[in-house]
Amino acid sequence: MSHSHTTIIDTSQMPVSMEQSRQSANAETLRRLNGADPILVNVAAAGEVIPGMTANKILTSGAPLEWSDYVGGQRNALIYGAIYEGLAKDAEDSEAKFASGEIEIGACHEHGCVGSVAGIYTASMPVFVVENRTFGNRGFCNFYEGESRRRLNYGVYDEEVREGLDFIRDVIGPVIADAVRAASGIALKSMITRALHMGDEMHSRNTAATLLFGQELTPHLLDLYAQHGDKVKQALDFLKQSDYFFLRLSMAAAKATADGAHGVTGSSVVSAMTISCQDFAIRVSGLDGWFRGPPAIADDVKLFDGFAREDVEWVGGESHITETIGLGGFAQAAAFPLQTYQGGSPQAMVELNESMYTITVGESEHYRIPYLQYRGTPTGIDIFRVVETGVVPVIDAGLAGKGGVGQIGAGILRAPPECFQLAKEAYLKAYQSVN
Amino acid sequence: MSHSHTTIIDTSQMPVSMEQSRQSANAETLRRLNGADPILVNVAAAGEVIPGMTANKILTSGAPLEWSDYVGGQRNALIYGAIYEGLAKDAEDSEAKFASGEIEIGACHEHGCVGSVAGIYTASMPVFVVENRTFGNRGFCNFYEGESRRRLNYGVYDEEVREGLDFIRDVIGPVIADAVRAASGIALKSMITRALHMGDEMHSRNTAATLLFGQELTPHLLDLYAQHGDKVKQALDFLKQSDYFFLRLSMAAAKATADGAHGVTGSSVVSAMTISCQDFAIRVSGLDGWFRGPPAIADDVKLFDGFAREDVEWVGGESHITETIGLGGFAQAAAFPLQTYQGGSPQAMVELNESMYTITVGESEHYRIPYLQYRGTPTGIDIFRVVETGVVPVIDAGLAGKGGVGQIGAGILRAPPECFQLAKEAYLKAYQSVN
Repeated sequence: MSHSHTTIIDTSQMPVSMEQSRQSANAETLRRLNGADPILVNVAAAGEVIPGMTANKILTSGAPLEWSDYVGGQRNALIYGAIYEGLAKDAEDSEAKFASGEIEIGACHEHGCVGSVAGIYTASMPVFVVENRTFGNRGFCNFYEGESRRRLNYGVYDEEVREGLDFIRDVIGPVIADAVRAASGIALKSMITRALHMGDEMHSRNTAATLLFGQELTPHLLDLYAQHGDKVKQALDFLKQSDYFFLRLSMAAAKATADGAHGVTGSSVVSAMTISCQDFAIRVSGLDGWFRGPPAIADDVKLFDGFAREDVEWVGGESHITETIGLGGFAQAAAFPLQTYQGGSPQAMVELNESMYTITVGESEHYRIPYLQYRGTPTGIDIFRVVETGVVPVIDAGLAGKGGVGQIGAGILRAPPECFQLAKEAYLKAYQSVN
Repeated sequence: MSHSHTTIIDTSQMPVSMEQSRQSANAETLRRLNGADPILVNVAAAGEVIPGMTANKILTSGAPLEWSDYVGGQRNALIYGAIYEGLAKDAEDSEAKFASGEIEIGACHEHGCVGSVAGIYTASMPVFVVENRTFGNRGFCNFYEGESRRRLNYGVYDEEVREGLDFIRDVIGPVIADAVRAASGIALKSMITRALHMGDEMHSRNTAATLLFGQELTPHLLDLYAQHGDKVKQALDFLKQSDYFFLRLSMAAAKATADGAHGVTGSSVVSAMTISCQDFAIRVSGLDGWFRGPPAIADDVKLFDGFAREDVEWVGGESHITETIGLGGFAQAAAFPLQTYQGGSPQAMVELNESMYTITVGESEHYRIPYLQYRGTPTGIDIFRVVETGVVPVIDAGLAGKGGVGQIGAGILRAPPECFQLAKEAYLKAYQSVN
C-alpha cells in the first residue's frame, strides 16, 4: 500500500466562513460526544443483531481490504474464524472460500462493531448490544476470551481457544444475556465515570469497571441461579478472573458514543481510528471514507519476557475507539497501575495525558481524572490541531506477536500523522468547494 | 486533663548499646508488621467472641477514662449504647448505672477492638473477627452503620439509628457470617493490596475494597439464597450502597496487624493511636500504657455545607489504626479521589504521604502506591523520629459535630507532638535503666 504525502496547508489562509462553520460543527460534535448515553440493552448472537451480518460473513478489524491484502496473523485469524464457525473444514478450504467470496469479509466499523486486535466476529458469537439512548444508534462488541495470551483475536487457534469460544457462547453469553434482560438494561456511562476514579482508563485497564459490572449483575444472578445452576457460578468466576472483561463493554459504549457524533457536516473531529495488518486509518465526523496511513508508531512498549520489538506484528485493532471518545490513553492519568502492564512512569503518563488537550476540541463533562483535580478528559480529536501541532493521539494497546504466539506485550502507540494530513486535505477539498 | 511538658532529650547522648538494640527491636517490629496475615475468620456477637466482653459492658474509643471524664457526644454515645442494648430504660437510668458501675465501660483497644469515631460496642452487636495467622492474635471491629450522617458512632441516636443497628444485627451480620463461614475465611491482605491500586487508602476511602469483598462473598451468597432468601439481596444492596463498608474490615485487619507487632522489647514503634473526648493518646510496642496529649490538630478539613470549624467535636476515634500500619493518610497518594471528600489537592496528598517516610522505620512489603512507582507505604511510626523531625503522623478522618448532629465533614488530622515526647521520655527511662 502506498500513502500519499501532502503539503501542510496554512489554516490562516482558510475562508473565515469555513473556519467558523468548522468550529461550530466541532462544538456540535463535542456536544454529541458528551450527550451520549450508552446503555447495555441486550446480549445476542452476532448474526441476530448486527446490521448486515450474515451466516457466511466474518468481521475483522481495520479499514476494508481485499482478501489478498489480509496477511500474517490477521489472515490466519480470518481463516480460523471460518473454521470455528464451521464455514470451512480446514485452512485450505477456508482460503478457497474467502478467495471465491463464498465466505465474505466485513469491516467491523461498517457494521456498528469494533474489533479487539484482529476483531474476529462470526455469526454465532454472542455480542454486547449497546444503545446510545440519546441518539438511538447502536454499538456492538463481542466478548473477552479470557486471560490466556493465546486467543483468536490475537490470531491464535487451537483446541483450547475453540473450547474457550464455546464456553463464551454456551455459558457466559446466555447467563449474562438473561441477567441484562432481568436488569432491563444496564447504564454504562455512570459505571465508566466511577471506574475512572478507581484506576481504570477503560482501554488497557478495566479492573474496577469489571467489578462494578459484576456487582450490578449479582442480584439478577441470584434469581437466575435456580434456572441456570452452576453456569451462574462459572460466569461469576469468569468475571472474577477477567480484569479485562469490561473492555468489550467500554468498546461497545465508545462505539455507540462515537457513531452518535459521526456525520456532523463541517466537523473535523475524528469519529473512529482503526488498525489492520496493512495500515492505520481514521474516519472523520464530517467526511466520508477512511484516511489511511502507515502502521502505528510503537516506541513506548513493554514486552513480555522473551520477546523483542521485532516480534511485534500488526494483526488489527479497534479498541482505540476508547481514545476516540476521551478514554484509554486520553485518560491514562487516571490509571497509574498501568505502569506494571505497559511500562512508563506516572510522570510520563500525566504528561502524555495532558498533551492530548492540545489536539482535542474540548473536555468530557462526565469522564474525569482525579489526579488532574477532576478535569474532564480531553475529548474530540481535531484533525486540524493534530496537523498544526504535530502532536498525534496516544493509544494504550496490547501487542500481538508474529507466528501465532498470541499477546506478547502492551504499550503506548502513537497514531501516524499521515492519516491526519490526508484527512485535512480531504476536508479542505470538501468544504472549500461549497464555500 | 493536664499534659506534662518534657524537655527534648538529645539522642546522640544515648548509650550506643541502647540505640543499637532500639534499631534492632524496630527492625523486628517492622518485620512483624510486614509479616502479618489478617484473615476474616468469623462474624459473631461481640459478647460471644471479644475477650473480657460481658453483657453489661460497653466499649468505647480512647485511652481509658473515668465515667465523669466522658463528656459531650462520647458520653451521649455511651448512654445511647446502654439504651440500645436494653441495659437502661432512659438517659437518666443510664447515667446512674454508669456512675454506680452497674454498667461497665471498657476501652476498645484493651479488648482487641478498634472503635470508629465514638466506637460503641454492646454485647449483641455483630463484629468481624480477624485473625493474624502469622502470630495467632485476633482483632475485632463492629459494622458500618450505613451512609446516613446520623449514626450511633457519631453520638447520635433515634428511632432510625436504632432500626439501622437492628438491621445490621438481624440481617447483615447473619448473612455475612454464613458467607464467611462458607468461604472458610477470607484473606484480607491481598484484598487491601489490590484496593490500594484502585483508589482506596483503607481509611477514608474503601470503595474498591468493598467491591472486592462483595465479589468474594458472592458465590457463597448464591448458595445461601435459598436459605436466607431476601436477606441476601438486602445484604448485597447494603454493600452496594456502602462505600465505607470495608473500613471496619480494614480496621480489624490493622488492629490484628498492629497487635501482632506490639510488645517487642526495646521497640520505639507506635502500636496504636487513639482519640477520646479528652485526649489523643499513643501506645508504643516496647512500652506499657498510653501516652496522652491534647486533641488532634484539625487544620486541613472540609466540612459539609452549613458547618464551621467550631462545630467540630471530639467524640473519640480509633480508625487511625490504619495509619499505624501504613495505610490511610500514609497511603493517601493511592487515593486521589479523596479530594472530593476531605479536600486538599493531589500535589498536597503526595507531599503529605511522602513526608511520612521521614518518621517511619521502613516500608510495607505488600501495600504499595502506584503513583509512587509502587513504593511500599511508610510503615512503623518511630516516636524518636517524630520528636527529632517535628513531623507528626497525618490521619485521614471523619469529623463529628457538636450537639448530636452526626458527621459534619472529613479531613486530615495531625497527631499532637506531645504524645511522642512523653513516650520518648518514658522510653529513655525504661531502657536507660536496664543498660
